[in-house]
Amino acid sequence: MGVVTSLPASDLRSSAPGNAAGEDVLTRLVGLIGGDMAACNQAIVARMDSQVPLIPQLAAHIVAAGGKRLRPVLTLACARMCGYAGDRHINLAACVEFIHTATLLHDDVVDESVLRRGLASANAVFGNKASVLVGDFLFARAFQLMVADGSLSVLEILSRAAATIAEGEVLQLATQNDLGTDEARYLDVIKGKTAALFAAACEVGAVVADRPAVETAALREYGTCLGIAFQLVDDALDYAADQATLGKTVGDDFREGKITLPVLVAYAAGSETDRQFWRRTIEDSEQTDQDLDHAMALMQGAGAIQATLDRAAEFAGAAKQALAVFPPSAYRSSLAEVADYTVSRLR
Amino acid sequence: MGVVTSLPASDLRSSAPGNAAGEDVLTRLVGLIGGDMAACNQAIVARMDSQVPLIPQLAAHIVAAGGKRLRPVLTLACARMCGYAGDRHINLAACVEFIHTATLLHDDVVDESVLRRGLASANAVFGNKASVLVGDFLFARAFQLMVADGSLSVLEILSRAAATIAEGEVLQLATQNDLGTDEARYLDVIKGKTAALFAAACEVGAVVADRPAVETAALREYGTCLGIAFQLVDDALDYAADQATLGKTVGDDFREGKITLPVLVAYAAGSETDRQFWRRTIEDSEQTDQDLDHAMALMQGAGAIQATLDRAAEFAGAAKQALAVFPPSAYRSSLAEVADYTVSRLR
Repeated sequence: MGVVTSLPASDLRSSAPGNAAGEDVLTRLVGLIGGDMAACNQAIVARMDSQVPLIPQLAAHIVAAGGKRLRPVLTLACARMCGYAGDRHINLAACVEFIHTATLLHDDVVDESVLRRGLASANAVFGNKASVLVGDFLFARAFQLMVADGSLSVLEILSRAAATIAEGEVLQLATQNDLGTDEARYLDVIKGKTAALFAAACEVGAVVADRPAVETAALREYGTCLGIAFQLVDDALDYAADQATLGKTVGDDFREGKITLPVLVAYAAGSETDRQFWRRTIEDSEQTDQDLDHAMALMQGAGAIQATLDRAAEFAGAAKQALAVFPPSAYRSSLAEVADYTVSRLR
Repeated sequence: MGVVTSLPASDLRSSAPGNAAGEDVLTRLVGLIGGDMAACNQAIVARMDSQVPLIPQLAAHIVAAGGKRLRPVLTLACARMCGYAGDRHINLAACVEFIHTATLLHDDVVDESVLRRGLASANAVFGNKASVLVGDFLFARAFQLMVADGSLSVLEILSRAAATIAEGEVLQLATQNDLGTDEARYLDVIKGKTAALFAAACEVGAVVADRPAVETAALREYGTCLGIAFQLVDDALDYAADQATLGKTVGDDFREGKITLPVLVAYAAGSETDRQFWRRTIEDSEQTDQDLDHAMALMQGAGAIQATLDRAAEFAGAAKQALAVFPPSAYRSSLAEVADYTVSRLR
């Protein structure tokens, strides 16, 4: 087949939220791993092919939309930091990206999103049916690639991550419209839906390099904390960015009644009148055109965005701390910078 | 957790289409495998559990709805026919059922179905979002179970099957509303969406018993042909059964403009007026309340249902033929009966 023959050169220059310094951080990390990222991109394109043309067409739509490919970069960089000198990490990084892409395709169906990374989402272009099925294909293909690699440890890590992601997404569904959700439960949601794959992506880097348990655990912890920080900032961005830089529809979370930390902080700090507003808009899903602006004003007043970013900074700090078991290296410094960058996306 | 503590005793007495003789066939096969099916049902219930209550609730809805559990029965029976004396086949049969259940959940979202096995479909009760995500969970859980089993051969067979199922489903989407689809392409669709999992379910039985390639290939062929026959009869039933015995909405395929063999035969045999009818209803999706009856009358006139069943009987014959490499046994006889039963569901 070969519907997609190459990926845009600007792949790693995210079209998603970012700033010049942030892009420098990622560019530096990608620079350290040399040709690994290009090889991974080639593997992604080659392995998403199928005799059924709609599959690479739809997959190309979401893959070509760019994104930072942060997760596979983490796998590649962690493997190299651990001294890995082979090439198994290339395909395994592609697996990580396939699992991520599959969840994005299903998320967009679940969320009824129309924008993804600044472009029309796959479900908006190809329909929900195709998005569900191509997500299934990419998920299965990821497992085929892992089986070909042959490591049961890697299969264990990524199959567990896949189950945990789904659990986090279902838990998110269960907390939707429920202002009785507490921060611990919210953290459970984002640990599952986002941090589990970050953790697995990093851990696989140490496993492929055959490093001892203390290092696999450290990279798992780094990935978990990084993923939590990343999602906290994403949830802040949904109320604090403008659409052009966000690359998705602003206020999506609000319209869907999604329970995120900015909402929980503003609700907890609110007057009875404020709480009535939150109950009407989030719990009862009764919203008017002005409500998003009012929600953002209430958050401003409650310092909810800042509180969310402060929590993100705590987790970014914990992520950097987890790297301490590794000797100093350009990789370690760069992975630490990524943790800072994750938070700086909004500051 | 433990939302589901037991499965109905009548599990294997299908609420789906069948006749007394057909149920006898399945009951006989289940009788041969002794306690294996009960052990498999226990594994299914235990392994679909999660700390997120909505997951076992939704999974229980579809699992408790019964169905014949034909695919796991095939894994269990094929393993025993191959002389396997251990218990690994129990969990692997559960994996097969999980993959099947995941595809059902996603199919019902894709098809916008409201009935499944005579009950409200999961998406109609729990919503599309939950159905997509719990499908993802069951799929991931299946891989976790396979990883715990530890056979890369089994992982290879079932990950390939999962990718092929998705490809078949996407190809079906691409042929929808397209009367230019030929029988070969239609067969590609059902080989993917249905026969691939039948084939894998049977092949795994020989692999777990560590049998030589000629036997794994024979069971793969048996499963492929059985699956094709099964789907051909399903496609005939959609135009030839009454809703009470079908356990799903009659005429779903017609309303969705799905291209199945009964339609292709009737279209090929039709007059120009008939073909205009098919183009309007299937290609242009313009249907009135009387159109399904007229479609069934045209099929009657063209012998389309009979032609479809004849094709199914051919594949059932090929399935039985594939069993010839095995020495005569009660298992072999019973698996041959299953092939006949598959076709007899409608005759």
